[in-house]
Amino acid sequence: MTVLEQMGAQAKAASQQIAALSDDLRNDVLKAMAVALQDNEEAIIEANQADLAHAEGLSAPMRNRLTVDSAVLQGIATSLAAVATLPDPLAGPYESWEHQSGFEIVKKIVPLGVVAMVYEARPNVTVDAAALSIKSGNAVILRGGKEAIRTNVALAIVLRTVLELKGLNPNIVQLIEDTSHESVNELLGMRKYVDVLIPRGSRGFIDFVVKNASVPVIETGAGNTHIFVDDSAKQKEAIQVIVNAKTSKPAVCNSAEKLLIHEAIAADFLPAVASALIEKGVELRGDQIAQSIDSRINKASDEDWDTEYNDLIMAIKIVRNVDQAIDWVNEHTTHHSETILSENKEHVADFMNQVDAAVVYQNVSSRFTDGFEFGFGAEIGISTQKLHARGPMGLPALTTIKYEVFGDGQVRQ
Amino acid sequence: MTVLEQMGAQAKAASQQIAALSDDLRNDVLKAMAVALQDNEEAIIEANQADLAHAEGLSAPMRNRLTVDSAVLQGIATSLAAVATLPDPLAGPYESWEHQSGFEIVKKIVPLGVVAMVYEARPNVTVDAAALSIKSGNAVILRGGKEAIRTNVALAIVLRTVLELKGLNPNIVQLIEDTSHESVNELLGMRKYVDVLIPRGSRGFIDFVVKNASVPVIETGAGNTHIFVDDSAKQKEAIQVIVNAKTSKPAVCNSAEKLLIHEAIAADFLPAVASALIEKGVELRGDQIAQSIDSRINKASDEDWDTEYNDLIMAIKIVRNVDQAIDWVNEHTTHHSETILSENKEHVADFMNQVDAAVVYQNVSSRFTDGFEFGFGAEIGISTQKLHARGPMGLPALTTIKYEVFGDGQVRQ
Repeated sequence: MTVLEQMGAQAKAASQQIAALSDDLRNDVLKAMAVALQDNEEAIIEANQADLAHAEGLSAPMRNRLTVDSAVLQGIATSLAAVATLPDPLAGPYESWEHQSGFEIVKKIVPLGVVAMVYEARPNVTVDAAALSIKSGNAVILRGGKEAIRTNVALAIVLRTVLELKGLNPNIVQLIEDTSHESVNELLGMRKYVDVLIPRGSRGFIDFVVKNASVPVIETGAGNTHIFVDDSAKQKEAIQVIVNAKTSKPAVCNSAEKLLIHEAIAADFLPAVASALIEKGVELRGDQIAQSIDSRINKASDEDWDTEYNDLIMAIKIVRNVDQAIDWVNEHTTHHSETILSENKEHVADFMNQVDAAVVYQNVSSRFTDGFEFGFGAEIGISTQKLHARGPMGLPALTTIKYEVFGDGQVRQ
Repeated sequence: MTVLEQMGAQAKAASQQIAALSDDLRNDVLKAMAVALQDNEEAIIEANQADLAHAEGLSAPMRNRLTVDSAVLQGIATSLAAVATLPDPLAGPYESWEHQSGFEIVKKIVPLGVVAMVYEARPNVTVDAAALSIKSGNAVILRGGKEAIRTNVALAIVLRTVLELKGLNPNIVQLIEDTSHESVNELLGMRKYVDVLIPRGSRGFIDFVVKNASVPVIETGAGNTHIFVDDSAKQKEAIQVIVNAKTSKPAVCNSAEKLLIHEAIAADFLPAVASALIEKGVELRGDQIAQSIDSRINKASDEDWDTEYNDLIMAIKIVRNVDQAIDWVNEHTTHHSETILSENKEHVADFMNQVDAAVVYQNVSSRFTDGFEFGFGAEIGISTQKLHARGPMGLPALTTIKYEVFGDGQVRQ
């Protein structure tokens, strides 16, 4: 057995224990973990300082995500404690029914078993993923980025110590300390032990995981999201929504990346929206028609149309009508969030029905694609796939069903 | 574009049309297809005769599955018409709620889009898969085995002609006529066009698909299913259940393959159950203890414990207690159906909670793991995975959700 296989076997064994725990006991563990993280602030911040000292080459936003100071740790602990207040995702009442021959079928909600999470240099994911897994009765295997390894080790020690102090198997939470690519590759093939793997990171990384994994995967997050401005749109409102969707948090997956404008309004609307975006520091790129209307727009390459910038850049295309907009979106979408700004009911209905995305908006900023905003209380990620979970995922995404059948000797004719 | 990519693009285009059709119109199509299959009986049976003439090497059960005579075709048509009577899997009412800022979120049920089905020499699957896809608003790409290719072509012509006569896109149903391995391999990578691929066939084939597919897959069917006979079991009833689970239809996935017997009752129970099984023509294999109790039992190899025989063979192992039975089952299960025969509530609860399978039975034959028996009205397959669908799958397994959001200019702070 390799080190990872051993961790997998330990996780499977531990998953039975956490699955059998009552919601009250799972919540006790989470609350104790929140306290313990704050009690161990010094050790955690010291480990984080060491990570930061080794990560001189990181960009400012990456460095920012990696940093755990007292305020950040407080936030992590608060989020963890908040998970304890959510409704039990395993709670009944379960559906049940009787077969004509007299036996009873019960459709139970059960944990998936072992959740694996692969992510980059964001130590808060270590705690979030552990908390959501425990709340849903799963064991978790964490594989964070190498830049955060010292912080993650420090956090995992605290979480595992709490499990031990509660008389539980510490392997309910395990951290893979090997941050080489090989450890990810091995994890992708561990079908015997891993019930679901959730990758969080760049689109390239998630594509790599999907193509190479034989374990079940939930794809998350890639968001090449479009806004189509119909000829019937309220233009002032449209500009507000576009500016919000593009600039309020450009690094996240629910930010807008592409703008499609109906040709009938382009001559007036494009310069107006361009001015508003440029004022917020957005670089504009566009097709030939867009460029001919507004000279502040740079030329977009073919590649632009499939690129998630995660930055203050937006590409603009002029389209003939809603049908062309729908076709364009379906060709380039990452199936995350897509928006139509329109007052025309038929156009809205066509866009809603035909665009193939988890969330489709009329006259609302796509920045709302988020588990908390959707009222789910927690977010494990945003699924861009159609099977099992789609869009913002709350705790139920970490559960499955199981049929239990109780009889007294029934046989099939 | 390759031939298959073209089919994929055509399926995507056609999927929009079928998704937009009302349940009444989808049902009309299905009923017309049922009539058309019977109207074209001669051409279909002739094609099938040609397949049978080319398939001299096939085993008798395979030949039986391949054969389409008048009675079989009648059955296929009846099943197809029956799908039209099922409730609409896309029907509302949908959940919906309002965000505090005033926009409405609607959680809609929508078709997956393009369903691909890969299967062996069973022409009925061609029609079943098309019917279930149409009923759930999906386009379908069919890839059947080479032995049935002429029959499948004949069936697909009838189904596509009905679509055309109804003024619909015939590419709602497409059959891949290239029966080489290459066509399967290409299909496994067609992420742009295939929303779900459902493989039906041997465990080896399904494992190959899972390991090599980058399209989303629902694993089906592999059933290395166990029966554990506890020391508290009603022994006469136990023998009836075991004989039914093993011998009533040995070639199917919900048949029992392995028998675990509590050591406290083995000396009496094993010879009794062995006699009942041998009388039904079952070859028995077993571990050393089983062999020492009953000399009619052949030696089981290590490989036996992980083999789905799909035949009149059963391997028997003596276990110390329910805990050892649970561990053994979890080590060798294909996560399909597992059974405990017991009157001891604690043992039953432990087995139910800890065994990791889609369906867990107490005192019932596992032959009931079936969409029709579970009351789902249709069966697309039996999922042995945990994500999206688990156990017998009805029409909802071919749907997903989509969030539609309607507002009037809301932006996120």
